[in-house]
Amino acid sequence: MLVLPTRDIRENERDYAVAFAIPIDTKGVIHICRPPGVPREPRKIERPLSSKFGHVECLVIFDDVFVPWERVFMCGEWDLAAPMVLNFANIHRTTKCGCKAGQIDLMIGTAALMAEYNDVERAAHIQYKLTEMILAAEIAFASGVTAAVQGNKHPSGVFIPSAIHSNVGKFYASSKLGEDYLFLQDIGGGPVVTLPAEKDFFNPETGKWMEKYLKGKEGVPTEHRIRVLKLIEDFTASEFGGWLMGLSTNAAGAPMAERIEILRQYDMRKRKEIAKAIAGIA
Amino acid sequence: MLVLPTRDIRENERDYAVAFAIPIDTKGVIHICRPPGVPREPRKIERPLSSKFGHVECLVIFDDVFVPWERVFMCGEWDLAAPMVLNFANIHRTTKCGCKAGQIDLMIGTAALMAEYNDVERAAHIQYKLTEMILAAEIAFASGVTAAVQGNKHPSGVFIPSAIHSNVGKFYASSKLGEDYLFLQDIGGGPVVTLPAEKDFFNPETGKWMEKYLKGKEGVPTEHRIRVLKLIEDFTASEFGGWLMGLSTNAAGAPMAERIEILRQYDMRKRKEIAKAIAGIA
Amino acid sequence: MLVLPTRDIRENERDYAVAFAIPIDTKGVIHICRPPGVPREPRKIERPLSSKFGHVECLVIFDDVFVPWERVFMCGEWDLAAPMVLNFANIHRTTKCGCKAGQIDLMIGTAALMAEYNDVERAAHIQYKLTEMILAAEIAFASGVTAAVQGNKHPSGVFIPSAIHSNVGKFYASSKLGEDYLFLQDIGGGPVVTLPAEKDFFNPETGKWMEKYLKGKEGVPTEHRIRVLKLIEDFTASEFGGWLMGLSTNAAGAPMAERIEILRQYDMRKRKEIAKAIAGIA
Amino acid sequence: MLVLPTRDIRENERDYAVAFAIPIDTKGVIHICRPPGVPREPRKIERPLSSKFGHVECLVIFDDVFVPWERVFMCGEWDLAAPMVLNFANIHRTTKCGCKAGQIDLMIGTAALMAEYNDVERAAHIQYKLTEMILAAEIAFASGVTAAVQGNKHPSGVFIPSAIHSNVGKFYASSKLGEDYLFLQDIGGGPVVTLPAEKDFFNPETGKWMEKYLKGKEGVPTEHRIRVLKLIEDFTASEFGGWLMGLSTNAAGAPMAERIEILRQYDMRKRKEIAKAIAGIA
Repeated sequence: MLVLPTRDIRENERDYAVAFAIPIDTKGVIHICRPPGVPREPRKIERPLSSKFGHVECLVIFDDVFVPWERVFMCGEWDLAAPMVLNFANIHRTTKCGCKAGQIDLMIGTAALMAEYNDVERAAHIQYKLTEMILAAEIAFASGVTAAVQGNKHPSGVFIPSAIHSNVGKFYASSKLGEDYLFLQDIGGGPVVTLPAEKDFFNPETGKWMEKYLKGKEGVPTEHRIRVLKLIEDFTASEFGGWLMGLSTNAAGAPMAERIEILRQYDMRKRKEIAKAIAGIA
Repeated sequence: MLVLPTRDIRENERDYAVAFAIPIDTKGVIHICRPPGVPREPRKIERPLSSKFGHVECLVIFDDVFVPWERVFMCGEWDLAAPMVLNFANIHRTTKCGCKAGQIDLMIGTAALMAEYNDVERAAHIQYKLTEMILAAEIAFASGVTAAVQGNKHPSGVFIPSAIHSNVGKFYASSKLGEDYLFLQDIGGGPVVTLPAEKDFFNPETGKWMEKYLKGKEGVPTEHRIRVLKLIEDFTASEFGGWLMGLSTNAAGAPMAERIEILRQYDMRKRKEIAKAIAGIA
Repeated sequence: MLVLPTRDIRENERDYAVAFAIPIDTKGVIHICRPPGVPREPRKIERPLSSKFGHVECLVIFDDVFVPWERVFMCGEWDLAAPMVLNFANIHRTTKCGCKAGQIDLMIGTAALMAEYNDVERAAHIQYKLTEMILAAEIAFASGVTAAVQGNKHPSGVFIPSAIHSNVGKFYASSKLGEDYLFLQDIGGGPVVTLPAEKDFFNPETGKWMEKYLKGKEGVPTEHRIRVLKLIEDFTASEFGGWLMGLSTNAAGAPMAERIEILRQYDMRKRKEIAKAIAGIA
Repeated sequence: MLVLPTRDIRENERDYAVAFAIPIDTKGVIHICRPPGVPREPRKIERPLSSKFGHVECLVIFDDVFVPWERVFMCGEWDLAAPMVLNFANIHRTTKCGCKAGQIDLMIGTAALMAEYNDVERAAHIQYKLTEMILAAEIAFASGVTAAVQGNKHPSGVFIPSAIHSNVGKFYASSKLGEDYLFLQDIGGGPVVTLPAEKDFFNPETGKWMEKYLKGKEGVPTEHRIRVLKLIEDFTASEFGGWLMGLSTNAAGAPMAERIEILRQYDMRKRKEIAKAIAGIA
């Protein structure tokens, strides 16, 4: 377990300026755990994401824990907390650019598959929504690439990404995520949240009706259409989907922290000088 | 059970141009039901919404059902399906203006309470987000009021709202809902999806740590802060929250159906004539 | 000339807490005027808006002006400045709801006429843009109607609109105006800012080429197409168009002033109480 | 003069599938010119952009022009028009990523300077607006960098940027430009379009009042504040500003052309396959 400050620390808070790494079962460490939103019983069709992905969240308490000195990275250097946090966030947000691009790519593929199975893939409003989602994914991706390309080597030898771009990519992709959820629900339609359960589909008595009336495009098995609907449900209408939204919003830093860093990293003085030169201000 | 066409019907589909009302237990009617996302065991703090609200969704099959003639409103009048659907949607969307305003009002109150308990209610970015949510709620409300005020009495005696405003209000509020979910997650922060369960809070061994470390603003009991976090979780990170998003998006008609109706209801000819007059086109 | 405070006034600024009405040519009143962006020479086709509309803006100086006592409405009542400003803004913003709706209506009519003459009126992306503009116009209109309907009679007998709705309508319509300008430019295309002058069109030597190559849809005279392009130019690429954007943004109060008022007028306490009740907080 | 097809050409239009380069004064070439929006008389303070920048737009007619064979690049190869246009657009849009980033950088510097001179630079809503503008500039920049980094060498030896990123950057920055104009007007306030002319400022009789009453932040000469206001006016409320909006919207291709290309370039098949794998569709 890697323990770090998560924000700027002031001199009078120096007792909290600590960083270290210890095994998670060290004596005195208490984990109050929250399991991921997996289904209680295994499913065949439902919960295709939450059956495989997700992680345990913990409230971790340090109740008189001994940390050997060789495992301590920071102990009281309060003025180094801010740079440590910013460097950590910068690198984490760079990885999030790729992470969010991939997550949205999967949402786009899901939305396009749904549209294909509903036989509306060429409808202009569907293409509009897919293009909006692609914009978010590619902006996240391009910001990550640029954070890397425009980065610098730190004297320690570690490579530091360009902080403005890592923050732009993470912030932008996250800020569009609510819209992405809406688009999935919209393209899936009512059945995303009204479709009966897989138990009913595999029960011959009810399944025959579902087979007949939930059919989409000619040539696509009803089961395939149901599988995509259940994937959209897991993305947008499950504990897992909500947890993923939370993760996307607040992990690697809250949206406002990213906006502050974007403004801070932008060389405003230089742009003001250009504006002055154009305006004729000496 | 009231049965209506849900879209325009063409002459060669006239067998589907039927409308009628029958008891839900009529012989031959089969309901394949999907229960609401209520928790399996009663909760004290968690799931404050989904423990009380939600409804059973059904796929309803008519397997050789007899409908007495006096219960039939439409039988083959295919050319009346479109006006029936549009009138129904118009009235339903008008009620949705108030419904969405109320739903967002509750989300705003929840967000503001969370901000108060986190002691950040005066932060400019919190106020920005609250104001954005208020804009959506009040635009929905104002559209509903105007749909009523600008409506007309139908020759049948029924009052018909102004369709452009009912559609504007429903569409706009729904289109902002993804952002509202993000704002709630953002204002609640990480604990929305990482907070341990109420069982851990009421367990003295773990609860004492939660009591101590999850404390927010001075004077606010930790339990109250946890209650608001659990309310945000239920809104944005539960089956119920996802169902509510689906309901808000697709019930009373899909977003694209509303946009089409908005454009169709707008008197474009009149506005083109004004533009022609200004441009000097005789 | 009606003179009013434009903001809250504190006790130590009470000398500025004055309101009165005087003729504009009163001795000591100096007007430093800025003429509207009218064309220097009359035009036949170009500048259809700025040839007829616009007003003189003034910096007005009061250099030792005598105001008779019977023309004075406020003199030192500093604590009444804020309510006076808010009431004035509320009423002004209500009128702006109708004003912005009308302005956007004209922009929509212009855009639709342009699309018709370019023979792309049925293209889905054109209809998307028109619908977005209609949303802004109708939200402004509905907010104005609701501000009136939900208003109250002041003890003085004056009718006071509902401030939250007047502010919502003015703010929202203004905030979309930049997009409206872009949509007009987009639908008009390159010729909005590259089309030769009307002098070239009426010169037979150059006009014959313009007549031939600037033709749009079959049956629409080239001159009509040019007239609409020149109308879009006047809206979006002229001094007048820029002045209109400024007027829409800042007249009746700046956007931030409106947001502050929206948050202030919203009954947050009531919504927090509802959230508390749902969350089980006594 | 370089002449190219600007769109896909079909077989029955093959006479238009031509590309060539000739001197602009070749016999038979007629230019119907439109001068840039420069002020008629030189200015000291006003029109700092349009006095120096802008270009002549032309409607160019080819009235029986001879093009020597060695200057012809395409003559009838109708099926090569589409790839030529797409490659040209791709490269042009990549340069536009840098161009728009630079243009918005200047707008940001101008906005920040205005805020400084108005002594509101630390206000949260000002910082919000600056950050929004930075997002647009850096997204354009990052898209351009990524278009280059992810490009490929064409067999001819020419380097071809990644088309999805060049289109994303150009589209996104352009789509935010209307908002950027609004933000400049908002931060400048009413004086952007109400300030008297420089002639009045340099006239001692009127200038003394302007000097006194248009003063901003302590320590900043009134003239400097006026210079920034006049720069904002030139950006947002002049022929030049409107032309620049048109250039940003339609030069290098219309917004819808960019959206089509973004969707076309995105490897949807691959993302559908991933979605299928997750959903369990063989």
